[in-house]
Amino acid sequence: MTQLEREIAAQPEVLERLLAGERVRVERLARAVKRAGVHTVLVVARGSSDNAGLYGKYLLGARNGLLVALAAPSLVTLYRRPPRLAGVLVLAISQSGASEDLRQVVAEARRQGAPSLVLTNRTRSPLANEADEVLPLHAGLERSIAATKTYTAELLALAMLSVALDGGRAEREALRRVPAAVAAALEAARGVEAQAARYRYAERLAVIGRGFNYATAFELALKLKELAYVTAEPSSSADFRHGPIAVVQEGFPALLVAPRGRTARDMQALAAELATRRAETIIISDVPGLLRRARTPLRLPLGVPEWLSPISAVVPGQLFARHLAGAKGCPVDRPRGLRKETITR
Amino acid sequence: MTQLEREIAAQPEVLERLLAGERVRVERLARAVKRAGVHTVLVVARGSSDNAGLYGKYLLGARNGLLVALAAPSLVTLYRRPPRLAGVLVLAISQSGASEDLRQVVAEARRQGAPSLVLTNRTRSPLANEADEVLPLHAGLERSIAATKTYTAELLALAMLSVALDGGRAEREALRRVPAAVAAALEAARGVEAQAARYRYAERLAVIGRGFNYATAFELALKLKELAYVTAEPSSSADFRHGPIAVVQEGFPALLVAPRGRTARDMQALAAELATRRAETIIISDVPGLLRRARTPLRLPLGVPEWLSPISAVVPGQLFARHLAGAKGCPVDRPRGLRKETITR
Repeated sequence: MTQLEREIAAQPEVLERLLAGERVRVERLARAVKRAGVHTVLVVARGSSDNAGLYGKYLLGARNGLLVALAAPSLVTLYRRPPRLAGVLVLAISQSGASEDLRQVVAEARRQGAPSLVLTNRTRSPLANEADEVLPLHAGLERSIAATKTYTAELLALAMLSVALDGGRAEREALRRVPAAVAAALEAARGVEAQAARYRYAERLAVIGRGFNYATAFELALKLKELAYVTAEPSSSADFRHGPIAVVQEGFPALLVAPRGRTARDMQALAAELATRRAETIIISDVPGLLRRARTPLRLPLGVPEWLSPISAVVPGQLFARHLAGAKGCPVDRPRGLRKETITR
Repeated sequence: MTQLEREIAAQPEVLERLLAGERVRVERLARAVKRAGVHTVLVVARGSSDNAGLYGKYLLGARNGLLVALAAPSLVTLYRRPPRLAGVLVLAISQSGASEDLRQVVAEARRQGAPSLVLTNRTRSPLANEADEVLPLHAGLERSIAATKTYTAELLALAMLSVALDGGRAEREALRRVPAAVAAALEAARGVEAQAARYRYAERLAVIGRGFNYATAFELALKLKELAYVTAEPSSSADFRHGPIAVVQEGFPALLVAPRGRTARDMQALAAELATRRAETIIISDVPGLLRRARTPLRLPLGVPEWLSPISAVVPGQLFARHLAGAKGCPVDRPRGLRKETITR
């Protein structure tokens, strides 16, 4: 078993630990955010953590009515013209806490007296030291270069924060069921190795998701690039129709992330459009009608609400990327040219 | 000559018309934005216009200290949970003004009493009717499906607004020189047809830009997808190192958008990293040291300040995509499966 597979398999346990360990702190953080009169959240992150930030954009938008902007760190680091941060919470997300550009944005929040919060797996890091508040991810050491367990922990941390800001018993109960849903997704994905082999010679792939699972499309495209060296291009179904769909011809592989919810009808329409182009579809879903349309169906467990579905929906995709890398003979734990900590300025 | 080439060639004249025709209105709009006490701009757009919005994010951030968020229209259309818009300017950008999802976001601004502004080439459209203010692009009818002259007009309209908000004589003078710079970029790109032929069999391509030209990377990746059916993946040099660089091996083509300015050093470092991987580099630049590094140099005219460089730097890339499509035998004016107006909800 590769390190990566061990880390993918550890996700239910990591999420359980995070839920149990940080419930109290998250409630306190939510009260502080409310007291501060925050109307906008500025997310600053790179790589997989930036994809978690995309989930945050939809989640804190749809559930909490907050305006979420993804930061352009170069405005602080290269152009030295930071935005005014009155009423803004700076939310940094980073596995390692090592990125210098993220630290500078958080330092700017401190300078302007704006609140800052860091979600990180390393509570002793330059980034964590700079922030007002730190929410630890409890993921344990992540050795594999491709982030998996820290990514889902980041998503759950965001969901915990969102529920602490606005949520009742039903939402808290739904949070508690997340680790079991991820375990069920792992169980349902047992056949992925055999399914992935078919794509051994694919060099490009479209990855499409919308709404809450727009983030899942970005994260899976990144996994496919990092692990299997596939040029995987993420987009929303809406943006995809605005141009990228032109690349699709017979046999072009498209991975659709399409769990039950408000976006399912649109994803269904897109699957039909792709069928008329004779594209090859790989579909992650819990909707039987959608799974039937897929050349390669990746089945999700039932009963997960859409706002939490990105945490379990990414799992079959992580395994798909891992096994596609295996089929291609790529070194899964040490992809070429990547380091665990990327220092960007 | 294709319709697309005529529209690419018309850009200096379009920009001239926009500068002359809307100077007064833009000054009035800027005063209104200041009076409204706007601290945040919410950009809502799709396709090429969304890429123009990315330029706006850096431009209004770096020059005007505004916080710019790109909207997630589905929060309004699918999830029916719009953000609170106090202190927010909703800025819609759309060639056609036909997208229903954009119209709904602008309607929400009206409902909440937030100011809205539409940049559009069709002043009589559902979107334009919904907005407080309309800034016409003066691009003339755009027939080709791939947007070119409306894209650069959108960039210039944003630059005019930014200068009207904060700018002196030097900046106004720099704006006036833009049409000539675009004409010079067209002139300098005469050899692109021969240069593009080499990539006849490329199916994937990385497109990298940073800061102001992050937008240019996205726009050129979209042109390459729409016109030449290449899976072209845009990213910033910082994000690229966080994973996507793993796909690069000997001969992998990478298009770098690297004009003079704050990002040039980082792009130079990336070009060196790509050289050690024996990647094939196509470089759009006015920096001699960077052009010398390129397998395929695309030379820009000198003397354009970085904040305005996206308007001229996109031009050789537009022509590169057009001629790559030609070499591949793709129907340049009517890419498969695209319509001029994409209706998204």
